[in-house]
Amino acid sequence: MSQKPEEIIGSLITIGDEILSGHIGNSNAHYIASELHLNGFRLANMVTVGDQEKAIRRALLEVVGRAHFIICTGGLGPTDDDRTVAAVADALERPAEKLGNDVTAAGFFLEHWNTPCYFLPGVPSEMRMFMEEHVLPDLFRRFPTRPLYRKRILRVQGLPESLINERLEDLDTADLQVEIGYLPQTAENWVTLLATAEDTVAAEELLQRADQEVVRCLGADTVSGRDDEALEVVIGRLLRVQSWKLAVAESCTGGLLAERITAVPGASDYMDRGFVTYSNTAKVELLGVPPEILSNHGAVSHEVAKAMAEGARSRARVDIAVAITGVAGPSGGTPGKPVGTVFVACATASRTLVLQHRFSGNRRQIQEKSAQATLVLLWKQLMA
Amino acid sequence: MSQKPEEIIGSLITIGDEILSGHIGNSNAHYIASELHLNGFRLANMVTVGDQEKAIRRALLEVVGRAHFIICTGGLGPTDDDRTVAAVADALERPAEKLGNDVTAAGFFLEHWNTPCYFLPGVPSEMRMFMEEHVLPDLFRRFPTRPLYRKRILRVQGLPESLINERLEDLDTADLQVEIGYLPQTAENWVTLLATAEDTVAAEELLQRADQEVVRCLGADTVSGRDDEALEVVIGRLLRVQSWKLAVAESCTGGLLAERITAVPGASDYMDRGFVTYSNTAKVELLGVPPEILSNHGAVSHEVAKAMAEGARSRARVDIAVAITGVAGPSGGTPGKPVGTVFVACATASRTLVLQHRFSGNRRQIQEKSAQATLVLLWKQLMA
Repeated sequence: MSQKPEEIIGSLITIGDEILSGHIGNSNAHYIASELHLNGFRLANMVTVGDQEKAIRRALLEVVGRAHFIICTGGLGPTDDDRTVAAVADALERPAEKLGNDVTAAGFFLEHWNTPCYFLPGVPSEMRMFMEEHVLPDLFRRFPTRPLYRKRILRVQGLPESLINERLEDLDTADLQVEIGYLPQTAENWVTLLATAEDTVAAEELLQRADQEVVRCLGADTVSGRDDEALEVVIGRLLRVQSWKLAVAESCTGGLLAERITAVPGASDYMDRGFVTYSNTAKVELLGVPPEILSNHGAVSHEVAKAMAEGARSRARVDIAVAITGVAGPSGGTPGKPVGTVFVACATASRTLVLQHRFSGNRRQIQEKSAQATLVLLWKQLMA
Repeated sequence: MSQKPEEIIGSLITIGDEILSGHIGNSNAHYIASELHLNGFRLANMVTVGDQEKAIRRALLEVVGRAHFIICTGGLGPTDDDRTVAAVADALERPAEKLGNDVTAAGFFLEHWNTPCYFLPGVPSEMRMFMEEHVLPDLFRRFPTRPLYRKRILRVQGLPESLINERLEDLDTADLQVEIGYLPQTAENWVTLLATAEDTVAAEELLQRADQEVVRCLGADTVSGRDDEALEVVIGRLLRVQSWKLAVAESCTGGLLAERITAVPGASDYMDRGFVTYSNTAKVELLGVPPEILSNHGAVSHEVAKAMAEGARSRARVDIAVAITGVAGPSGGTPGKPVGTVFVACATASRTLVLQHRFSGNRRQIQEKSAQATLVLLWKQLMA
């Protein structure tokens, strides 16, 4: 193994009364931190101060000399330009020069003993433009040798945190040279892989090896995709490959399932229709659910989920259909079928699968978990 | 007017390598800032440092003595308790005492010359629990006299920013003693009112007066609700009062509209069914849209939107129905009907209204704006 290059350390200052008062979150800081990290720079700290010249000056003087570079955002709107620039010039006793030639957005730069200091507007789109066009290219020039970080997210379906931990116990992470983390989401779990290397190829190789190891431990039928590859994207690809058409029928999720499927560009290639059968009458009329099944078993039942999926498939004359019926709450629960009881079903020409779930959480979380569980069932059926 | 009480100023330190690396945003800071602000405390700064003892100690020593109180979150998980507490004790040369009796979550407190310092876990649910049960009550006891801030959000429908600004020009904000702000959302616009007063009653009175003034300037038919009162909640209330049943038919939003309506607890009282008629066949079969209208005018047309709404109303035998058809993109646009072209319709027994929109943005934003525009049309129809 070669020696790791020296870490390049930065400080980030965000200026904004509206962040300190909690009116808005600091999404600029999140974006900048993420961009720097992925490009091999490390932030030692982030500081947020108000719109007062004194506070800005003080924050600058505290970080200058302790970092290889400083990024400062906010306080550079068309009206308060002068304030930040004055504070900067005053604090560092250096003139500032304008970044780029854009007349609608203002960014500034100055160098304080070899420390580059970048001053960007707080408007997110303008800040991003300056980051991409000026700050990162300039940092690359100044610090060509630096560790490189690459991240990968593995999207894990249908495994609770405890099982993931148990199955990952076998991994020898030291040997993998990849930091493995865990980020629970509402309806799926993410395993994150973080590799540090000198170049992209080496980092990608490390990630690839760790990815295979994690998949081996967790089981291939639990990792549905990577990074931005949501389950509905993977499903769309599988449907398109098989030239299959899909219909969905949903009750307690009220359209959420259809919405997730159609959020994918080009979904019209495989999505035929969705039935949001909120009332029992709608279940009978649109899906042909027999009224006696509804009265004998209740709308939230194995039998109704099955009839909904089969009805959606035959009424829409499609290859595959999924259905959800459940109690999302907060009301509507019974001792036998408490809030969170959800049946999901998937019907093809050859068979219909039905699964019962008991989800925890509020109405929204139960709806999200129900939609996800249905997508998981659909995904597994398409992979079978 | 009475003299304003002295401002009580705090500092917030968040600890977390995962924030500095951009893996996660700092939602804890946003929450704490907002809670403090609404309760009359002002944050002078926020600092985020990594999980290293030295960085934590340094951050503490920099803010102590410059604030009336300090809140520190993160670095207090079950495994790294000791690290933060050790850094704290070391930095301030004071022993820390445990906050509360909870054995599953750890929070600490110490007083450094009269400055209370609170150390909370980074897990959001635990942090919130400590804020509500320990930090805020303790701050109230220590600083009983402080300015009180109350915020109100007015949700404005169907007015672009430029028109809002134009109509609000008449307002005499100095006379109102309320700070008026503007927060654009994806599909609606928020006007925020911020009142500062000595007690809740006075603040609420100021807000109420400003609220009336803003509504007078903008027009009563543009402000649909306040604070958490989303448009679908207001619509649900209107439908319930009139004992009306609703059906929705949607194409380019793919279930988003039905999902928003059914996200409201108790929506089954008025929501009968939703048709996600993604394919033309589905529009014909489920809604009875005449095939010749589809072939003559195209699926994205005034005529089809009208036929969809009327078909949904008659097929579901409900009092009112809405429909959406449009081009959400990224593909599917034509010179005559570019991406973002959307027709929304609302049908009752007596009339059908159809509106054409041209929305900007990506697929998701166009879908959100389309759903919102349909809800606005439905809301105005119910108010008529």
